[in-house]
Amino acid sequence: MKPSRLPMLLAALLVAITAAPSIAQQSPKPEQLVKWRQSAYQVLAWNNARIKSSLEEASYNRDEVQRAANVIAALANGNLGSLFAPGTEKAKGWRETAARPELFTEPRVAQLAADFSREATGLAQTAASGDPAAVRESFNKLGRTCKACHDAYRVKD
Amino acid sequence: MKPSRLPMLLAALLVAITAAPSIAQQSPKPEQLVKWRQSAYQVLAWNNARIKSSLEEASYNRDEVQRAANVIAALANGNLGSLFAPGTEKAKGWRETAARPELFTEPRVAQLAADFSREATGLAQTAASGDPAAVRESFNKLGRTCKACHDAYRVKD
Repeated sequence: MKPSRLPMLLAALLVAITAAPSIAQQSPKPEQLVKWRQSAYQVLAWNNARIKSSLEEASYNRDEVQRAANVIAALANGNLGSLFAPGTEKAKGWRETAARPELFTEPRVAQLAADFSREATGLAQTAASGDPAAVRESFNKLGRTCKACHDAYRVKD
Repeated sequence: MKPSRLPMLLAALLVAITAAPSIAQQSPKPEQLVKWRQSAYQVLAWNNARIKSSLEEASYNRDEVQRAANVIAALANGNLGSLFAPGTEKAKGWRETAARPELFTEPRVAQLAADFSREATGLAQTAASGDPAAVRESFNKLGRTCKACHDAYRVKD
């Protein structure tokens, strides 16, 4: 070994040592990702139910709807796609995944995800206005983007 | 029955009929609430891990951190308390609840929840600025509010 290379090797070793824990954290196990994924969709279901309930009540709860719409919008724009990373196709989280294999391969999924993000942002904006009729329309639009993906890529119960 | 009371009774009946489905939706079963609750905390853990990971990486990912902080803030301000409704003290969601009984009775919990909401909002605001040092400080503040509640009210593994 040439003596001149030693500092470079030491530097590389230092990078490797300090980077190791970070790399481990960047790559949670597939089972962990699927548990988070299933949790994220449960949280979407919770907030969907809150908005639906408020729209069907005699007195519309603007605050409740806005909070719920904000959660949905934050998740829809929160890089949910990272929870569908390679290796998660068949991994078990809280339970077996309900995602069909095609979800991980078909290019149109990106467009469906973009539609979902756009309508979720739209609902959060509409919810801030407080007009129940407008919220209902935005909510229905959002629901169609959910359904489009579920119909094609979610295993039937 | 006096005839004059009939319209009032009919009106009351109409209210009861139309309100019934709404009441059913407003009151999901405790098991459902606990499943949503456990899911919400998993989503918090996911986004906590993303921010932690970005802060420990050589290159800070501002976009990633901001998206994650937005999810945490939306949930922290999203009325998580409703998922701790009466009846959920011992209900099983994905698994047995990790919430200790005192969580449902001690008045100081409201203050801990308010602390959490405040610091989550602060982190989302700091994340928008993009300064990693400021984000680290906000993230640590938020972490202390998580820990304060977990130490007192979460069953030890």
